[in-house]
Amino acid sequence: MEPRVDFISLGVRSVSRSRAFYIDGLGWPVHREVAGEVLFIQVNHGLVLSLWDVRQMRAEAGVSPPDGVPCITLSHNVASAADVDRVMEEAGSAGAAIIAEPVTQPWGGYTGYFADPDGFRWEVAYNPNWTVDDAGAVTV
Amino acid sequence: MEPRVDFISLGVRSVSRSRAFYIDGLGWPVHREVAGEVLFIQVNHGLVLSLWDVRQMRAEAGVSPPDGVPCITLSHNVASAADVDRVMEEAGSAGAAIIAEPVTQPWGGYTGYFADPDGFRWEVAYNPNWTVDDAGAVTV
Repeated sequence: MEPRVDFISLGVRSVSRSRAFYIDGLGWPVHREVAGEVLFIQVNHGLVLSLWDVRQMRAEAGVSPPDGVPCITLSHNVASAADVDRVMEEAGSAGAAIIAEPVTQPWGGYTGYFADPDGFRWEVAYNPNWTVDDAGAVTV
Repeated sequence: MEPRVDFISLGVRSVSRSRAFYIDGLGWPVHREVAGEVLFIQVNHGLVLSLWDVRQMRAEAGVSPPDGVPCITLSHNVASAADVDRVMEEAGSAGAAIIAEPVTQPWGGYTGYFADPDGFRWEVAYNPNWTVDDAGAVTV
């Protein structure tokens, strides 16, 4: 697993409220959005900040933190479904807890989730719809 | 405030245990560390993953989440203390809750903290000891 973070996904209680803060308030640019569901902001080159409805995020990750506790996922994107399987195995061998074995998601990607020793959640993702350059940088 | 994330800081219960996972297990490179206190990994260009003793992190940020809840901070680094003040004001005007007004930290930096609408914590930081290039990318 390369030392790389491609997405920071924040599980938010209201995407429109997050939009008012990050887009209208701070003036950050929207790169893609599904109104009320998810909003992507390309922050650094190769790094996307995703503001995602927390209910959808919990449904996909299979994790329900206590109310009031923010949900956050760091994502590591790879170039194929086979790479997802390989990286998940590598993380497991390194001592990660496997939260969710890789599955094909309704949005077309293939993703698995593991947790680091403190429970920080990493998604390992293959998304056939997005561009990953040779250096591994994701562009939405 | 530019759309940029410079640090992802995870508050960890044992830096040596995190080291065993990320460094020994996944094979990621250490770029700087203070044994048992903090460990920096340069992940993407311009993005640093920081594994920081959660007790120190809470002490600096002035935040004590319930036991068992991971601590995470996204940091936005700027080129001067005046820029920290400016960005904190901008975030406040955009609707952020100010968690901690900027102060000079024991490690020499000048930092403030705000929370987005869901309580996700951002640090706005000036660190005179670290390199920030013209594009804003931080290198440790």
